Amino acid sequence: MFSSVDYAFMSYALRLAEKGLYSTTPNPRVGCVLTLHDRIIGSGWHEKAGQPHAEINALASASEAARGATAYITLEPCSHYGRTPPCVNALIDAGITKAIIAMEDPNPMVSGRGCALLEQAGVTVQTGLLQAQAQALNTGFMTRMMHKKPWIRLKTAASLDGKTALNNGISQWITGEAARHDGHRWRARSCAIITGIGTVKSDNPQLSVRHVETARQPKKIIVDSHLTIPLDAKLLQGGGEVLIFAAHDEDVEKKEMLDRMGVQVIVIPNGKGAVDLRKMMTVLADMEINEVLIEAGCELNGALIEAELVDEMIFYLAPHLLGDDARGMIKLPELTCLEQKKELKIQDVRMIGQDIRIIAKFPSSRRQS
Amino acid sequence: MFSSVDYAFMSYALRLAEKGLYSTTPNPRVGCVLTLHDRIIGSGWHEKAGQPHAEINALASASEAARGATAYITLEPCSHYGRTPPCVNALIDAGITKAIIAMEDPNPMVSGRGCALLEQAGVTVQTGLLQAQAQALNTGFMTRMMHKKPWIRLKTAASLDGKTALNNGISQWITGEAARHDGHRWRARSCAIITGIGTVKSDNPQLSVRHVETARQPKKIIVDSHLTIPLDAKLLQGGGEVLIFAAHDEDVEKKEMLDRMGVQVIVIPNGKGAVDLRKMMTVLADMEINEVLIEAGCELNGALIEAELVDEMIFYLAPHLLGDDARGMIKLPELTCLEQKKELKIQDVRMIGQDIRIIAKFPSSRRQS
Repeated sequence: MFSSVDYAFMSYALRLAEKGLYSTTPNPRVGCVLTLHDRIIGSGWHEKAGQPHAEINALASASEAARGATAYITLEPCSHYGRTPPCVNALIDAGITKAIIAMEDPNPMVSGRGCALLEQAGVTVQTGLLQAQAQALNTGFMTRMMHKKPWIRLKTAASLDGKTALNNGISQWITGEAARHDGHRWRARSCAIITGIGTVKSDNPQLSVRHVETARQPKKIIVDSHLTIPLDAKLLQGGGEVLIFAAHDEDVEKKEMLDRMGVQVIVIPNGKGAVDLRKMMTVLADMEINEVLIEAGCELNGALIEAELVDEMIFYLAPHLLGDDARGMIKLPELTCLEQKKELKIQDVRMIGQDIRIIAKFPSSRRQS
Repeated sequence: MFSSVDYAFMSYALRLAEKGLYSTTPNPRVGCVLTLHDRIIGSGWHEKAGQPHAEINALASASEAARGATAYITLEPCSHYGRTPPCVNALIDAGITKAIIAMEDPNPMVSGRGCALLEQAGVTVQTGLLQAQAQALNTGFMTRMMHKKPWIRLKTAASLDGKTALNNGISQWITGEAARHDGHRWRARSCAIITGIGTVKSDNPQLSVRHVETARQPKKIIVDSHLTIPLDAKLLQGGGEVLIFAAHDEDVEKKEMLDRMGVQVIVIPNGKGAVDLRKMMTVLADMEINEVLIEAGCELNGALIEAELVDEMIFYLAPHLLGDDARGMIKLPELTCLEQKKELKIQDVRMIGQDIRIIAKFPSSRRQS
């Protein structure tokens, strides 16, 4: 159905799409390649919301008229007037005769409409080429469109015996420099980083992207039920958007102080004295948050996993042992039989410097809308 | 110094040596290839103590006279009368003119003597070809010869969050079938498997080699300070040698009962009510134990690591989470700063079925004689 030439051009379009990894959100990462007689005449990618889409950039870059061209696009072109006019019209006006599309738009409201309009205009449309790769690139956007929640990635750094900190709280640094820098790449592609008040108090992290070139810093989000965050916490000083989810709104004065510092406080109690984590994720989806990175301690990690909100785990395991008295990764209600275990599926295992990085996903059946 | 042909023949000799992985102990695994004008005329390996060495088997298999031949041997040939006459004499008598040897004999009492005798007889001797591979094959024999202790390998199976059993003790099965079968390969190459009385009581293991073809079962060793082992424990029933290390010898009756069952009890107290683990290892080396596999719980694991007796760790990590209430891998005295961590060096990481296997070594500087 697809030729090897098609695979090559779509692979190139995916590589172009990936250039927007740290910048396109809330929009998806999209690449487009235009060819005429199997020769590339134009290419482009979407860089940033509000700026032209990949297709428009590709058409603009075309070295000759695109009449009769084939367009390789990693995502179905848009058919509606958003921040920019619809790409479908531009492609039809340019006179392309064939569109090969990696994946349809995940938004159930518009999915398939772009393809239909192209076909109505006489353009041959083929979909599904390197679809899995295109979906992986936009897992957050897809999850938000389809399930009205962000893609939730939980990162943890531990010793080989699964310990994230000494019993006295010391945790800097469990893993090596290469693993820590790799961790910043996950931050850079995320729209938001979530941590718990416990981690803020014990580690006082900045939660900013460093060691990676990026024009955009993710939102910093703290789950702080009782609004006890110290006003001199590092992540309140560094600039950038900060958002606190709380369960109690009695401390009006603290809330006002935070307000004056530009920190938004959202109160969503779960009726048991803590934050309703599921509702928090819906709120984040409404804010157009695609990918979230959790960097928290065992309490918040456990609560999120127990609530079946986490989609993906990133484990960095350092080559040493800390012993059973050290702190663990994930606090869960005690299991009484092995069938209650939280199952994962390993996606990737590799060395990052001296450490091992494991990427694993929870079965998608767990994911709820 | 060595040609590509030399590498090829020595690689073959190493593969032959590996055929003795489950059978040669207490002897080392050795292979030998004889060539004449870069053509193989004979080959052999050592199969079992008391039976001919690799060199003798190779000479016996030679399709023509070995006069003028080159011998590729993975270990320096013996020069002394042991269970069999010295191989050096046989090689000289056969008229070989060149010997390429992967590694010298690790026994400081005889190391270099075989090479010297060959050279005195006019044989050209070259050593060190694929030495690391030859040493890896005989890590237990080497450690015993050089440090008077076995090579001590500690195997543990855990969830990705480092848990080996539920809080109620349930641990069957954390890992999948492929990982469990892989575990039996480590058993098969070991001279002894050591466990603690806690594991005997909670898991009642057989500690036998299954799922792997082998003519030899390793010794089963239990660290049982107070000699509280139940007489109906599975590992006492299955046949094979059983050895118990205790710290107390008051229970004469129990000792006699075990004696009648053919179980040897060795009492080595450490002065603090427990077994002296370092002395235990010396006793095992005296019994010609090359490789030991530890399959124990967090207490004995921790005590052996704390005593700096463990050389190598094999982690099987299963793709699931059990949470912090579950049991940990290694009980160590509480650390107060990260500099006290027990450092390891990763040797190998791979998937075994659905599980991840990590092999790591402690820095050799820790190893004491």
